[in-house]
Parts: sequence; structure tokens; C-alpha cells
Amino acid sequence: MRLGIVGATGAVGQAFLEWLPRFELDVQELRLFASPRSAGKTIPFSGQKLRVQPVGEESFRGLDLVFFSAGSSVSEQWAPIAQRKGVLVIDNSRAFRLHPSVPLVVAGVNSSDLFAHHGIIANPNCSTIQMCVALKAVQDLFGMRRIIVSTYQAASGAGAKAMDELLNQARSFNEGTNSSGNVFPHPLLMNLIPRIDALRENGYTGEEMKLVEETRKIFHSPALKISATAVRVPVLRAHSESITVEVQRSIDLEVLRKEWEKHPGIRVMDDPAKDVYPMPLYVAGEPHTFIGRLRKDLAFENGVSFWVVADQLLRGAAVNALEIAKEWKEGGPQQ
Amino acid sequence: MRLGIVGATGAVGQAFLEWLPRFELDVQELRLFASPRSAGKTIPFSGQKLRVQPVGEESFRGLDLVFFSAGSSVSEQWAPIAQRKGVLVIDNSRAFRLHPSVPLVVAGVNSSDLFAHHGIIANPNCSTIQMCVALKAVQDLFGMRRIIVSTYQAASGAGAKAMDELLNQARSFNEGTNSSGNVFPHPLLMNLIPRIDALRENGYTGEEMKLVEETRKIFHSPALKISATAVRVPVLRAHSESITVEVQRSIDLEVLRKEWEKHPGIRVMDDPAKDVYPMPLYVAGEPHTFIGRLRKDLAFENGVSFWVVADQLLRGAAVNALEIAKEWKEGGPQQ
Repeated sequence: MRLGIVGATGAVGQAFLEWLPRFELDVQELRLFASPRSAGKTIPFSGQKLRVQPVGEESFRGLDLVFFSAGSSVSEQWAPIAQRKGVLVIDNSRAFRLHPSVPLVVAGVNSSDLFAHHGIIANPNCSTIQMCVALKAVQDLFGMRRIIVSTYQAASGAGAKAMDELLNQARSFNEGTNSSGNVFPHPLLMNLIPRIDALRENGYTGEEMKLVEETRKIFHSPALKISATAVRVPVLRAHSESITVEVQRSIDLEVLRKEWEKHPGIRVMDDPAKDVYPMPLYVAGEPHTFIGRLRKDLAFENGVSFWVVADQLLRGAAVNALEIAKEWKEGGPQQ
Repeated sequence: MRLGIVGATGAVGQAFLEWLPRFELDVQELRLFASPRSAGKTIPFSGQKLRVQPVGEESFRGLDLVFFSAGSSVSEQWAPIAQRKGVLVIDNSRAFRLHPSVPLVVAGVNSSDLFAHHGIIANPNCSTIQMCVALKAVQDLFGMRRIIVSTYQAASGAGAKAMDELLNQARSFNEGTNSSGNVFPHPLLMNLIPRIDALRENGYTGEEMKLVEETRKIFHSPALKISATAVRVPVLRAHSESITVEVQRSIDLEVLRKEWEKHPGIRVMDDPAKDVYPMPLYVAGEPHTFIGRLRKDLAFENGVSFWVVADQLLRGAAVNALEIAKEWKEGGPQQ
């Protein structure tokens, strides 16, 4: 496969490069692209040093697939150009996610959607991906009626500079400063910031509405009732979610647990009395979706609550894109 | 008033002493008690140095009121002794909260309940208090049907040693260690711990069931549907909560906002587009309940979601106890 990466020097681009060798994509060519500011850098890959280039009109010629993770304005400008040249785009930005002709795919959840593409496949937002991985079995077994989710999102969701900002606040803690940086509007260390992304007119943030709108699209349920609260927490790179689902049929926790345990991308860690549950400090660097704290929900006649943690850069971005690429290459979904 | 404090050297006891002079309780005598380990220490108060004593059979003789915040086993042992001597107990432990003959009081929410006491009044759990302060107006205006809450709880909820443990993890961050301490089962810095208190048979933790059971008692609604997820976050001393309420009648956000703004104990901070919302780093040290991110809930026909932050040691413990003492002294609730 001839592969391109736009945004190769970013946090997700780097995660993509790190995990690429573990997917059998038979890479014959790899072109790395970034902003003019980062162009010229070299990045080691499989014993070679690859030079990062700026994106241009002819950049994608001859490629099979290009992965975009450089923000929605870059995707809006360049993805249609790749598309016109017959290069499949897997886009990690929000630019095309809700476009009716663009499949929005969580590998293993709605993989079959990807084959209806018109040249662009969208990777959902990180917090959506891990929630949908967990929700798939809930939907299949019991039918979903209503979802209420509160997130605990890591600095990594705002990029490599945001991770540096949190690290710098921790490193300077002994000096008694907890200063703001350039990425977050307030100090994040020892704090919580209950706003991620821009505000919509309905009082929800963009990050919250991504959870609502993308989940509806992934499950082909445009009327599914979902409400979300998205909060930034002082954690480096794994997102956590407290999820409550009202379902249509009577819940059997053990059936749900077994269904999760069968899923190759899910790790169930659920013995809270012995302090076994997923935690972001340990999930960082792992490609799986971790689930724990499974219990019947007390607010609904038929409902379930649980806790989901996944590495935002891997499961929430690069690994999902790589799984989509692999399923596309193999010509069929792997459920 | 002749006043005693059991647990005077603990984090809540210290907060109680710090805020005591701001309440007009006309303190004529103040006796400080703690465990034998802490007994003998002196604590400055109003220009005097008060010696901390161990608790004994005759400790409470002649007092009007004694505040307990030394854990439930100490309360179980000594509160009935104070009670038999005619000394009113305000107990901050979980020992008596759900006892049918013990009023469980959030000042300004169900203050009138306190006058039905039989010698013991219970202070609710910290996370319950701040939630109920916010819920009061929701209940009065629209009637509550269902509550789903996810908490983001500070180290202070586990006591002064827990705060030290988090501080030490931050101070040693540059040394590359993120070691466990003695209080929390896992490192808390750059992490989340989704278990607070012991596990119940239904899969919920004690902290979660306190939110369920205490809120039902405070609102005299034994069948109110509530589900809770309680998570420890790397924050020093203010708890945050993401709360969704299904209500019985159509929501008017501005009416609710105005009702909150009228409440002397509530501060509404709600202009998220300008990054105005409550955050624990800034709420620490404040006696009020801070509310923001108010919006119609998207999962319910009639529902509301919001974000509540309050200092766990003050609003969630010492200040509520002091307000109860003041209302009791004045002989009538101040709604």
C-alpha cells in the first residue's frame, strides 16, 4: 500500500507512525506531510529517515490512501484534492464527519459502512470512538433508548502542545506557580475545565455535541436521545467516561460482560472491591478500550452504568484509523 | 454558646475552627477533642491557645453543642453519651445519617427538619450537600423525577493525609516518580480513581449510595430515582459534579437561573463561551456552592443539566454544620 500522512508531526500523526508497523498493511511507500513550519524535519521510520514535506497539489499522486490529522481547515482544503485523484482519505478531523455521503466508522462497530464511501471515510472524535466500542454490545443485546455521559478528558485531546502545557505545570509545581499557558484558558494541574471546544447555541460545547451527533450516525439512530458533559481533567493522554444507558429490554449484566470479553479490542477490568478498574495513568499507551464499574443503573427500570477508559491518541484516533485501513485493504469488515 | 469539637485536628475540624468566628454563635466556651495521638497539641483560637483533649465520659458536661468529625466509629461511641447529657450533637460522619429519628440537614434546603431532632442532627456527606443546594430550586420549580450524577471529587474528601499524599506526588513529579501512598490505592496525580468508599452488593460504592440515599431523605422522597458515579480526581479540595435531572414540568432555564441567583449561598458562574464556569482550583477556600454550564438536557423531554463545584471542607462539611448550629440557636430555619 502507498500511504500518506498529513499532520505527521502532530501527536496523533506520531501515534499513527508508531503503530503502523503492527498492522499488516504492506507499506510500499510512505509520504509524510505537515505544515510549512514543520516541513523539512526528518522522522525515523523502519530504519529510514523520512523527510516531512508541505502539502501541495501533486502531493497525493500515486498514493492509495492518505490519513489526515491536521485539523479541519487542512482537511477541508486538501482532502477533496486527494479524493479527486482517486486516493482514499481517512480523515481524523471533524470536517466531514456529519456529511451524509461520508461514512463515519468505528472499526468493529459499524465497519460495513466504510464500503459505501465516495473517497472519504471519517474517523469519529476520540471520545465518541471509545464510547461506541462499549455501546455496541449494549445496543445488540438490549437496544438503547437513552444515553447520559460525563467525560474526564486528558490533555492529549488538545494536541502535543497541550500535553506539554500540563507537564510544564507539573514540573513547575514546586516553584509555587500554576500559571496558565497558551493552550488551555485556565491552569489544568489540580483543576478541571468544564468546557472543550466552542459553545453551540443550545449551551452544549462542540465536544459534547460530537458525542451526540456522531454516536447517532454510527448507530444509524438519528433520534437516539443522548446528553453529554465534557470536562478536561489533569491527565496526560487517556480519556475516561462515566456512561449511563437506558435500554429497551431487561438487563443481564453477565451476558453483557461476556459479550465485551469476547471482543478482541475490549479489556474488562472490573473487580472494584479489589481496586481493579480502568485508570487513565495505566491505559495510556494501550490500544484497547478498557471497561469497568459495570452495574445496573438505579435511575432507570432497565438501565446500565459503566466506566470506559481508552488512550485518546491510539484507540481514540490512530489505531481506529489503522483498523479502518486494514479492513478496507482486506475488502470486508471484521466484526 | 458552649461548644465542643471532636476531631479538632482533622481537615474538617480545622475548617470548622477557621470559620467559627464568622458565625455569630456567641461562643463562651470552646473545648477541642481529638484522638489520644493528637491530644496535648495546642491550637490557636481568638488569641488563646487551646489544648486538645482526648474524649472521655465527662468531656461534654455543661456544653450546649458538640460537633463530631472524627469518623463514624468515634461518633457511634461518643455521640450517644453527649446526647444523654443533653448536649446537641451535629455529626459529620455517616453513623446516624440514615437513622429515621435523626434529621439529615442541608441548611437552606430542609432546615426545618432540624427541629425534630432527638439530640443528634446529621450533616450529610460532602458530595450530597452541594448537589442538594443546587437541586432545591429544581425541585421547587419543576419537580424532580430522576437524577444522574457523575462526581469529580478532590483528595480532601479522604482527609488531610490524602491531601498531603497528592501534594507529595506533585512535589516529586520532577523525580519521575508517581508512587502510591498510604491513603489511595493507586497514584492520584495525572490519574483518576473510580472508586470511593467500600463496595456494596449492588456494585455501587458507599460514596455513590450516600448520594442516592441521603438525597432521598433530604427531599423526603424515598422513591426518587437517582444513580451516581463517584470518581476521585487529582484536585486538592473542591468537589465537582456533572448533574442531569429529569423533571416533571417544562423547564425554563432563566427562571431556574434567577432562583439560584437569589440564594445567598449560591454563586452562578455561567458564561462558558467566555470561559466563565466554576472550577475547583478557584472554588477552594470559598463557602458558597458554585453552579455553571446550565442547559436543557438533550436526553429527556423535560430535563436540565448543570455543573456544581464547592469546597468539600467548607460548603461540604464545616460551613453546613455551622449554618445548622446558627439556625438551631436562632430557633427557626432561615430558608
